[in-house]
Amino acid sequence: MLVEGQLYRSIWYDTASDRVWIIDQTLLPHHFSVICVNSLADMVNAIVSMQVRGAPLIGVAAAFGVYLSLRENPHSLENAINRLLATRPTAVNLAWAMSGARQRLKGLAASAIADSALKYARELADEDVRTCQAIGDHGSSVLDEIWRSKLENARDQPLNILTHCNAGWLATVDWGTALSVIYKAQERGIPLHVWVDETRPRNQGAFLTSWELQQQGIASTLIADNTGGHLMQRGMVDLCLVGSDRTTATGDVCNKIGTYLKALAASDNNIPFYVALPLSTIDFEISDGLSEIPIEQRDSSEVLSISGLDASGSRQTISLTHPSTVAGNYGFDVTPARLVSGLITEKGVCPANRESIAQLRNR
Amino acid sequence: MLVEGQLYRSIWYDTASDRVWIIDQTLLPHHFSVICVNSLADMVNAIVSMQVRGAPLIGVAAAFGVYLSLRENPHSLENAINRLLATRPTAVNLAWAMSGARQRLKGLAASAIADSALKYARELADEDVRTCQAIGDHGSSVLDEIWRSKLENARDQPLNILTHCNAGWLATVDWGTALSVIYKAQERGIPLHVWVDETRPRNQGAFLTSWELQQQGIASTLIADNTGGHLMQRGMVDLCLVGSDRTTATGDVCNKIGTYLKALAASDNNIPFYVALPLSTIDFEISDGLSEIPIEQRDSSEVLSISGLDASGSRQTISLTHPSTVAGNYGFDVTPARLVSGLITEKGVCPANRESIAQLRNR
Repeated sequence: MLVEGQLYRSIWYDTASDRVWIIDQTLLPHHFSVICVNSLADMVNAIVSMQVRGAPLIGVAAAFGVYLSLRENPHSLENAINRLLATRPTAVNLAWAMSGARQRLKGLAASAIADSALKYARELADEDVRTCQAIGDHGSSVLDEIWRSKLENARDQPLNILTHCNAGWLATVDWGTALSVIYKAQERGIPLHVWVDETRPRNQGAFLTSWELQQQGIASTLIADNTGGHLMQRGMVDLCLVGSDRTTATGDVCNKIGTYLKALAASDNNIPFYVALPLSTIDFEISDGLSEIPIEQRDSSEVLSISGLDASGSRQTISLTHPSTVAGNYGFDVTPARLVSGLITEKGVCPANRESIAQLRNR
Repeated sequence: MLVEGQLYRSIWYDTASDRVWIIDQTLLPHHFSVICVNSLADMVNAIVSMQVRGAPLIGVAAAFGVYLSLRENPHSLENAINRLLATRPTAVNLAWAMSGARQRLKGLAASAIADSALKYARELADEDVRTCQAIGDHGSSVLDEIWRSKLENARDQPLNILTHCNAGWLATVDWGTALSVIYKAQERGIPLHVWVDETRPRNQGAFLTSWELQQQGIASTLIADNTGGHLMQRGMVDLCLVGSDRTTATGDVCNKIGTYLKALAASDNNIPFYVALPLSTIDFEISDGLSEIPIEQRDSSEVLSISGLDASGSRQTISLTHPSTVAGNYGFDVTPARLVSGLITEKGVCPANRESIAQLRNR
C-alpha cells in the first residue's frame, strides 16, 4: 500500500543484494524507517520486539527467518523453527508457517535447503497478498450492502466503521485483513469514515491504523478504547470490523485485548460485528476459545510507560505511574462466536459456526 | 485519607489565614502538591483544568468559589454561579450545589453574604464527608456478603474488585464513593485486590486510583481499559464497583466513558455491577439517560498527547500520533439501569429502578 504516495510491502526480499527488508513498525507513526534483517537472531528479535507484528506478517517473517538461518547453517532447520515458534505463543499463523517449512524442507540436501526455504518464504508472502486481496473483495461486498441499506435512511453520510488494533497491511504483507475490506470498499467508491480505537497498551490503532488510513486518504477519527460503546449507543457506528489472531473451528475469535468488549456493545445495539481473517488463522484443532487458547501476558512496562515525541521532536519514553504500581498486561481476549455476525475470509463470508466454517474451508 | 501516612481532605479551609486549599490533582501520581485558591477565577480555572475533579468535589469546590467571589464583591452572586455552572456541563452536583447557594444566599445583606457563603461551603464539605462514609458503610456490607459467598468456594483468595476511573476520596472531599466502599471493607478486614482500569484518555485510574489505593495499603493491579472483559470471562473479577457523575430517576448511570463496556461484560459473565453514589448525584428530573444527558466533549489533545515523567524525572508531555490525526474525546457514557445490580447510596443499597430509588430517597 501507499507510504507518502509510494507502494510498499511490509516485508520484502531484494534478489540483487540477497537481503530481507522490513519496516520498523515500532517507530511509526513518527518515523518511517526500513531495516535489513540479516540473521535468524535479527528476525527473532524483530518479532519479539514487535518491529514486525500481526498474525499473517509474523508467519511470513518467520519463514524468512528460517531462510536466514539455513543460509548461514544448512543444518539449523529444527533449531530455527523452535526459536521462531517461541517468539509469540498466541499466533496460529506462526505455527502454521513453521509446520509448512518443516514439511517442505526436512530431509533436503544441505546444498539445496536454503534456496528452498527462500522460495517457500517468497511464495508464502505472495500467497498472503492474494489472500488479503480476496478478503478485501469479499468484505467490500458486505460493506456495500450495509451502505446501500444506510443510504435509504441517511443520505450524505459516510459509512461509519469502528475498528480495533491494526488489522491493516502492516499486519500482513500487503492490503491487510479488516483494513483490506476498507481499502477495497474505498476502491468501490463507498464514502467511508473509520473510528480507530487507540488500542492500549501498545496503541496499534493510534500508531499504525490511523497512519495507514491517512496514507490511503481515508477519513478517520482516533478514539480512546473506552469510547466505542457510547458511539454505538448513539447510532454513530454502522458496523464493527476487526481482525483475528486465532479463530476456533466453531468461530470463537481470539484478537487483541478489548475486542470482546466492542463485540458486546455491537450486540447490545444491534450493530453488525464482522471479523476479517485468512483461513490460515483458523485453528481447526480447537473448538472452545475460552478454555483452549492460551493468552499471552506481556511485560508490564507496556502499561506503565509509553513512547512518543516531545516538543523538540525527539522520541521519549515516559513513565505514567507511581513507581510502586503493579500492572497486568494480557495481550488478547476471546470473543465468543455468538457475538460475531460473520467471518470474512479469502473464500467468502460465512456465519461464525462450525458447519459454515467447515463448508467454507472445503469450497 | 492518608497521604504518606498523614490525613488529608481534597479541599479544606484554613480559618486562621482565610484561605482555601486544594490538591493539584493534575500532578498526581508524580508529585503531591497543594495549592491555595484565592479567587473565583482561580476556582473556575481549577475546575476547568481538572486540578479538582469528581462530581462531589466539584460541587463543594464551586461552593467555595462562590465564597471567594463574594468575599471580593458581595454583589457577584449570580455572576459567580453562572461562571461556575459553565465549567463542567455534565456534573449534576455542580448544579445542585449552585442552586443551594442561590437559595441560601440570595437577598442577604452585602455585609453578611460572604460569611454565609463560607458557612454553606464548609457545611457542604462536612456533609459530603458524612455522606461518603455512609456510602462506604452500606457498600461494605454488600462486599462482605459477596466475600462470604466466595469464601465457600475459594479460600485464601482476596475479593477481586474491578473499578473504572477515580471514584475515590480525591473525587470527593474525603473517603470517596466507590473507593469508600473499598476502604470500609478494608476496615472490616476483608482481604482485597483491586483491578484498576487506567481510564483513558485522562488516566484517572493510573494517576489517581492506583495512587490512592497504594497510599491506603490496598493491593491493586493497573490494567488497560481493554482488559476487564477478559478478566471477567476468566473468573478473575468478583464484582465491578464504579461511581457516577449523574444518575437518572430510573437508575441509568452516566459515568466516565467506558463504564458501559464494563457493565456489558459484567452482565455477560453474571458478575455483580454496583454503582456507589451520593443521592445528590441523582437527577430526579430525567428518566432516560441516553436521550436526556448531554455528553461533554473535551479537547482532542487529551487523546493525542499524554504527560508523564521522563528518565530524568522531569514532567514531559509527548505526542502519541502523527500530526494530521483527528481525535474524538467523549467524556462520559450512559450505562442503562438494566445492567446495574444495585445503587449504593448514603441511605442504603437499592435496585436501579424508579420505584426503589424513590423509596430510598424518602427513607
